[in-house]
Amino acid sequence: MIPDDALRELSMMLGERLSTGKSDLALHGRSETWHPEMPPDAVAYPTSAAEVAEIVRLCARHGVPVIGWGTGTALEGHGSAPLGGLTVDFRNMAAVLEVRSEDMLVRVQPGCTREALNTELRATGLMFPVDPGANASLGGMAATRASGTTAVRYGTMRDQVRGLEVVVPDGRIIRTGTMAAKSSAGYDLTGLFVGSEGTLGLITELTLRLHGQPEAISAAICGFPSTEAAIQTVILAMQMGLRPARIEFVDATTAAILNAHDGASFAETPHLLLEFHGSEAAVTEEAARFGDLAAESGGTSYQWATQAEDRTRLWRMRHRAYHTILASRPGATAVVTDVCVPISRMGEAIDRAARDIAASRVSGPILGHVGDGNYHAILLVDPTSAAERAEAKRLSDAMVAHALELGGTATGEHGVGLGKLHVMEQEHGAAWDIMGAIKTALDPDRIMNPGKLVRQN
Amino acid sequence: MIPDDALRELSMMLGERLSTGKSDLALHGRSETWHPEMPPDAVAYPTSAAEVAEIVRLCARHGVPVIGWGTGTALEGHGSAPLGGLTVDFRNMAAVLEVRSEDMLVRVQPGCTREALNTELRATGLMFPVDPGANASLGGMAATRASGTTAVRYGTMRDQVRGLEVVVPDGRIIRTGTMAAKSSAGYDLTGLFVGSEGTLGLITELTLRLHGQPEAISAAICGFPSTEAAIQTVILAMQMGLRPARIEFVDATTAAILNAHDGASFAETPHLLLEFHGSEAAVTEEAARFGDLAAESGGTSYQWATQAEDRTRLWRMRHRAYHTILASRPGATAVVTDVCVPISRMGEAIDRAARDIAASRVSGPILGHVGDGNYHAILLVDPTSAAERAEAKRLSDAMVAHALELGGTATGEHGVGLGKLHVMEQEHGAAWDIMGAIKTALDPDRIMNPGKLVRQN
Repeated sequence: MIPDDALRELSMMLGERLSTGKSDLALHGRSETWHPEMPPDAVAYPTSAAEVAEIVRLCARHGVPVIGWGTGTALEGHGSAPLGGLTVDFRNMAAVLEVRSEDMLVRVQPGCTREALNTELRATGLMFPVDPGANASLGGMAATRASGTTAVRYGTMRDQVRGLEVVVPDGRIIRTGTMAAKSSAGYDLTGLFVGSEGTLGLITELTLRLHGQPEAISAAICGFPSTEAAIQTVILAMQMGLRPARIEFVDATTAAILNAHDGASFAETPHLLLEFHGSEAAVTEEAARFGDLAAESGGTSYQWATQAEDRTRLWRMRHRAYHTILASRPGATAVVTDVCVPISRMGEAIDRAARDIAASRVSGPILGHVGDGNYHAILLVDPTSAAERAEAKRLSDAMVAHALELGGTATGEHGVGLGKLHVMEQEHGAAWDIMGAIKTALDPDRIMNPGKLVRQN
Repeated sequence: MIPDDALRELSMMLGERLSTGKSDLALHGRSETWHPEMPPDAVAYPTSAAEVAEIVRLCARHGVPVIGWGTGTALEGHGSAPLGGLTVDFRNMAAVLEVRSEDMLVRVQPGCTREALNTELRATGLMFPVDPGANASLGGMAATRASGTTAVRYGTMRDQVRGLEVVVPDGRIIRTGTMAAKSSAGYDLTGLFVGSEGTLGLITELTLRLHGQPEAISAAICGFPSTEAAIQTVILAMQMGLRPARIEFVDATTAAILNAHDGASFAETPHLLLEFHGSEAAVTEEAARFGDLAAESGGTSYQWATQAEDRTRLWRMRHRAYHTILASRPGATAVVTDVCVPISRMGEAIDRAARDIAASRVSGPILGHVGDGNYHAILLVDPTSAAERAEAKRLSDAMVAHALELGGTATGEHGVGLGKLHVMEQEHGAAWDIMGAIKTALDPDRIMNPGKLVRQN
């Protein structure tokens, strides 16, 4: 809720850049996945960190919830407004501020998307590698500690964010980190804000690491007789020090759906999709070594694609897979799981999940970023069927429980938001109280993205 | 201070494993560098996390300061006891608990040293790469976010610690992180404790990433006509995506000292010392490419060493350099600076520091981990001369001020401890208050390593 006097003050401050239109509110209450719509009471479109600070101070004075918004592509209801309040949409703060080629760094505003950044970088020989699929905003990606297909080589957002400018809950603007490659100067506040999902403050600027555009890229596809054989190949490759830029797993069900609905022609068995980055010589050596390992594990039909068009087609298909799978059952909505396990236990974990899903009343192909031990079941449910929704929740919770048993985590990359709140205590035990203590210390009135991530009481 | 009744309780709990012997106390109050001796009132030698928790609860009840201790090789007085209290020495908790080869992970106790771990790993094909020079304990290395020569390729402790067991200031034992390669499940507590210097809790177990032992290693040495030429070569190499395992800079003064006091035969100009890790083919390609870049920048006498003995001799000399430099002025003590700057500005920063030192009354060779922009001046001072000590402090503070101006940090790897406390506000501004708020939330009675890292008031 926003009290009338607060709304009036906001309106005076922002003019046209404060919106209370129904459709705008609805848009900012929606999630990509199954989460119910929870709209804010107003949406602000600030243009500077100073303005964000002014907004936060005003909201703090009136006890108004403040929710950050990038592109709305988060999957666990991160951007929803369960208590109403003000959504701060960063679309007007989307500039690339400075490219520092020699330092391989860039300073950006939070609303800049990863594709916009890479377009800007094209002529520099540099690139920003993190690729969660969606063309998300970089502020949102940092806030949710996003990763995706390329993390196996380049790391996650945790590894890319060198420094931040943040408006903290009392409205002060702080800077974390530096432009230096490393620092031991106290607590790692940058790392604390990355993944804090807007519950500790709003990111108003990011300093990000860049990487050289690879001299050569090649892609490969390989079918396997079993999940176990595919995963074993991944484990051996990692142990050997191979570092493909992507190692994606699709199970037999996903292969069948891609054949039927996206014009693919996979054998209907588990597959690995790979990409290699490096010098010509390094890429050739790495792809050949991977092919040898795959053959030893019973891999079939190892195919390379060095042509850009073939690669583009492959990764478009992979990135589209979520929507292709969703479309394979018209009218369905998806509950997407996101566990991440130690890679030694990944084969058994995927097999168990697949058996549980097969024995259930819903369908759910499995695919994932297996170089990191992270995979997703796309559980397809009829949104009008309470029984199917409950079944999907049961399957998802079972996958989480098994992942925790194996030393893994409930969420490899999608985050907590609303969707994983109920398993945080199970995963962290007393450490969740420490998170709560940090939240209380920095945001005693709980105005920043309330209802998410920490214990609610 | 430890009240008598607390000391009696500790003695009953620990028996022989509580020490109040003068020489033991003195040993635990000493620093490797110029910091004054500040001994604790007693030293505990616990054998389990449960015992550490019991110790911390007892100290919390009596308001007794608790200071963690690994090998005492920290450089900024991290382990000293300015308010007295109890030092917890982890030498009896030094086991390698579990090697998980397929996951490339190891679980260790905090007192285990990096060399002991690597000895244990020898037959597994895996290694732990972080190398700060000293044979430090892994708990201490995590607590101080250590790095050293190999960080340019493998990263710092921030990048190696996958999870921790920590006794927090109220005596609870928490676990942070998981065995999975990544997680988005809430605040990155692992990252918060890494680098917290014992001010938020005591680390009682670590889960660390391992890396494959490289198939091939080669080393190289190259002289340059100027610091600028050496640094420019480093910048070009990083931009080209070369990732040597070490890129060490030594200035002309260091080269002269190594010639005079450690049997080296360098031309007395700036040098880069390099090591390459990878497959035979990759190492050959990388070393050749680096050689080409060095030649373009005016590098002379690029020499490779593929023999293990030659490499060992080179890196022993590098690691010994601090002590060689110290011994070059008998009776001297060292004030070691540790700034880290964006690599684009490193050439000018090193040149300015060298000019300032040359114009001062003390001498100070410069060497460092230039792939990361991190370098050290070893300022040699007569410990009995207040004038020389003041001069060293002036030079050190000027290097810090310049580094901050350039977007860098006061400390790349040595940490805050006592020695960098006075520049924390200068570096962090209001963000230092956020660190203080976190400290207060987790350790309201300020029993954990008091006097360090956060604002004292």
